[in-house]
Amino acid sequence: MSNIANSTICAISTPAGQGGIAVIRVSGPEAITVCDKIFQPASEEKTIRAQSPYTMNHGQIVKNNIVLDEVIVAVFHQPHSFTGEDVVEISCHGSTYIQQEILKLLIEKGCQLAHPGEFTQRAFLNGKMDLSQAEAVADVIASSSAASHRMAMNQMRGGFSKELQYLRSQLLHFVSLIELELDFGEEDVEFADRSQLIQLANDIQVIITRLANSFSVGNVLKNGVPVVIVGETNAGKSTLLNLLLNEDKAIVSEIHGTTRDAIEDVINIQGIAFRFIDTAGIRDTNDEVEKMGIDRTFHKIDQASIIIWMIDTTHFNTEIEYIADKIVPKTKHKKLLIVFNKIDKISPEEQQILDEEFLPDVPAERIYLSAKYKKNTEKLEKALLKAADLPELNTDDVIVSNLRHYEALTKAIASIDRVKNGLTSNLSGDFIAQDIRECMHYLGEITGEITTDEVLGEIFRKFCIGK
Amino acid sequence: MSNIANSTICAISTPAGQGGIAVIRVSGPEAITVCDKIFQPASEEKTIRAQSPYTMNHGQIVKNNIVLDEVIVAVFHQPHSFTGEDVVEISCHGSTYIQQEILKLLIEKGCQLAHPGEFTQRAFLNGKMDLSQAEAVADVIASSSAASHRMAMNQMRGGFSKELQYLRSQLLHFVSLIELELDFGEEDVEFADRSQLIQLANDIQVIITRLANSFSVGNVLKNGVPVVIVGETNAGKSTLLNLLLNEDKAIVSEIHGTTRDAIEDVINIQGIAFRFIDTAGIRDTNDEVEKMGIDRTFHKIDQASIIIWMIDTTHFNTEIEYIADKIVPKTKHKKLLIVFNKIDKISPEEQQILDEEFLPDVPAERIYLSAKYKKNTEKLEKALLKAADLPELNTDDVIVSNLRHYEALTKAIASIDRVKNGLTSNLSGDFIAQDIRECMHYLGEITGEITTDEVLGEIFRKFCIGK
Repeated sequence: MSNIANSTICAISTPAGQGGIAVIRVSGPEAITVCDKIFQPASEEKTIRAQSPYTMNHGQIVKNNIVLDEVIVAVFHQPHSFTGEDVVEISCHGSTYIQQEILKLLIEKGCQLAHPGEFTQRAFLNGKMDLSQAEAVADVIASSSAASHRMAMNQMRGGFSKELQYLRSQLLHFVSLIELELDFGEEDVEFADRSQLIQLANDIQVIITRLANSFSVGNVLKNGVPVVIVGETNAGKSTLLNLLLNEDKAIVSEIHGTTRDAIEDVINIQGIAFRFIDTAGIRDTNDEVEKMGIDRTFHKIDQASIIIWMIDTTHFNTEIEYIADKIVPKTKHKKLLIVFNKIDKISPEEQQILDEEFLPDVPAERIYLSAKYKKNTEKLEKALLKAADLPELNTDDVIVSNLRHYEALTKAIASIDRVKNGLTSNLSGDFIAQDIRECMHYLGEITGEITTDEVLGEIFRKFCIGK
Repeated sequence: MSNIANSTICAISTPAGQGGIAVIRVSGPEAITVCDKIFQPASEEKTIRAQSPYTMNHGQIVKNNIVLDEVIVAVFHQPHSFTGEDVVEISCHGSTYIQQEILKLLIEKGCQLAHPGEFTQRAFLNGKMDLSQAEAVADVIASSSAASHRMAMNQMRGGFSKELQYLRSQLLHFVSLIELELDFGEEDVEFADRSQLIQLANDIQVIITRLANSFSVGNVLKNGVPVVIVGETNAGKSTLLNLLLNEDKAIVSEIHGTTRDAIEDVINIQGIAFRFIDTAGIRDTNDEVEKMGIDRTFHKIDQASIIIWMIDTTHFNTEIEYIADKIVPKTKHKKLLIVFNKIDKISPEEQQILDEEFLPDVPAERIYLSAKYKKNTEKLEKALLKAADLPELNTDDVIVSNLRHYEALTKAIASIDRVKNGLTSNLSGDFIAQDIRECMHYLGEITGEITTDEVLGEIFRKFCIGK
């Protein structure tokens, strides 16, 4: 690690591309010296070196006597910065050319281009945050819904760390008692009441198990509830997506200049993200290529937890039976929503007949709507939220959303299980202590108290550059 | 204008999308008050109101008692800010969700979403910069080559404004003398020596004409030298582009996460941007649709100032004559570069024969290269730079790159022309004074001393939001 901490790194920390302003972050022992080499302060005496921490300084970035840009420079002195090192942040105009040129200039003066997540990695290595908090930084940045954001923010602010700290302190207390007994082994004393120890092991197991179980919710909140829409060609999949992509969302996308295309597949409903898996429309066809596409649609159903089956109420035909054959067997493990579209075209009586006679034995929520006239959208949203079946989250709930954490928790459960068995079967204290230590080890892997370079490399590789 | 200045505006100022950090800018009389409503400082007493200007403050953005993000807030007090108003800049995590939520929260507390360029427009209205400088802000952000960047930066820093100021002061002096004569009209005095006045009008005309003439260079520098590549299908257009897109460029594109596709068409050679106009490959075909595409290729030649004609030296055929027929007539007004590709496959003798016998009468630069083996790329680059025929630019050169400015200058030239004619034909001072005033008016349009809401609207409409 030492060679990392000796270098001074730089990167563009704002999103890639062109904008009003961009921020270039420089961190490391030479951050101030290097930046002073390219910065010409507006008032002569005020170099970055002379600048007070947490203040801003106006000046120019100069390259070969040519003014590259007028910038604002902010300085943070170690250890009171994000990374725990000296940090300089250069706010420049958001031209890609200027961003590139300043970056090149910094590299020329001795900086290294930061690896993905390297700023956060340094924050971890310098003790500014534990590993689960560092990992949450990436999740906070990637979060696209209220639920995933709140979960990541809670983890970044140390909610999960606190819970793990508590568990580790309990385990430490536990193992000290056992090891004390071992020290007095020949005198056959028992410092810890065995039934109390079993109780403690039980309590710890309950907490770890709750955390591990929260992963199924955490994973869905993080990546979105997987939903697949099936139906005949032209049944109106895209109209339905447009419908769910309500106005509020449209304004937001306008603000951000994101194209409709890019966000079409993840839709936010009351703070929960639903991830719509793309499928081809289904129709009776002899075209081999098209048949393969349709087969793939049915395979994709397996990835979803909710199936929306769209039916054009004005247009029943043989394909409906074909689709029913494929879908109905899957409803045991998935939620099925049958959406009857174009209900503006049928009478209430016809609707009632549909309700009573269309696959009456299939357990499904039935929604009657008109995508065109935006009728009953709220019913579909409600049905989707109900089908997602997610628990209400409190601000302080600790939810595990990281596969690495989940795996460590699973191993910790196995260890604590062995501890319990050891206690009830009066196993030697040596073995019990070893299993407790093992449980502590797995929990320590999550917070990064126990870690390897490979693990760190794997974690930070997934970050974006500049964070 | 007054209603604009009374509102407080907000926008994301960093590029759209996800990144390490993002900056939200708030400007206007209520900027500090509004931000204090959503900001919870890390140390109790330090509200944004209490914060010193040019300092940073750490804290949280809170919505309904839930922490939305941990942020750094910078504050600038009017008039010492970019806009000349109170400005607060919130640096948050670069999650699109967080950016949206903070923006929504600001709007909820009374801010208005800024129009494109509204921050810069306010800077202009508050006298922080003149109109030509404000326009240059957008050009600085959009500039993608050293030349266009230097030109825009010079304009933003006031080079053009200074030149215009000088002209206007000269004209003012001029018109005062004439008007003074008019006041004493009946006494038939002549305060200004007519020959001196003609000299002055001449000098002014020379300067304005030089500025107007610089537009042809400025426009090319700003938008790139238009180049069209023609050749048979598979002659290697994309290989050639790859070749010109050298390694240095590739690193830069990696840094920025831009895709190859997006930058493929503008290539930077020694700080000059070349804009490659997309064309279809040419081949002899009976397909009507393809024929139309090929026709379009020849039409596109008209938009270019440089034509690169790529020839596969191993594969001469009838299409070559067909292409020659279309291209050769255009070489009078355009530069033609004939690029013989795959020269690694022919002998030096064959190359010499080519050189001597291939269209010997056509005035064209001939380049022999191997795109595959990257041979003679530098010759092609040199030939392109030579064909672009751009003057060497000095740091302080004032180049006009804005069509609006060019049009105003053209009108100013017409006015000063009339002044000169008036002076030589002993026209009444009334008319001469009127023409001088007109000339001043057109120059004033450039700097914004004379302007209308429509003109301003048109100018700032083209800006990005957040600047």
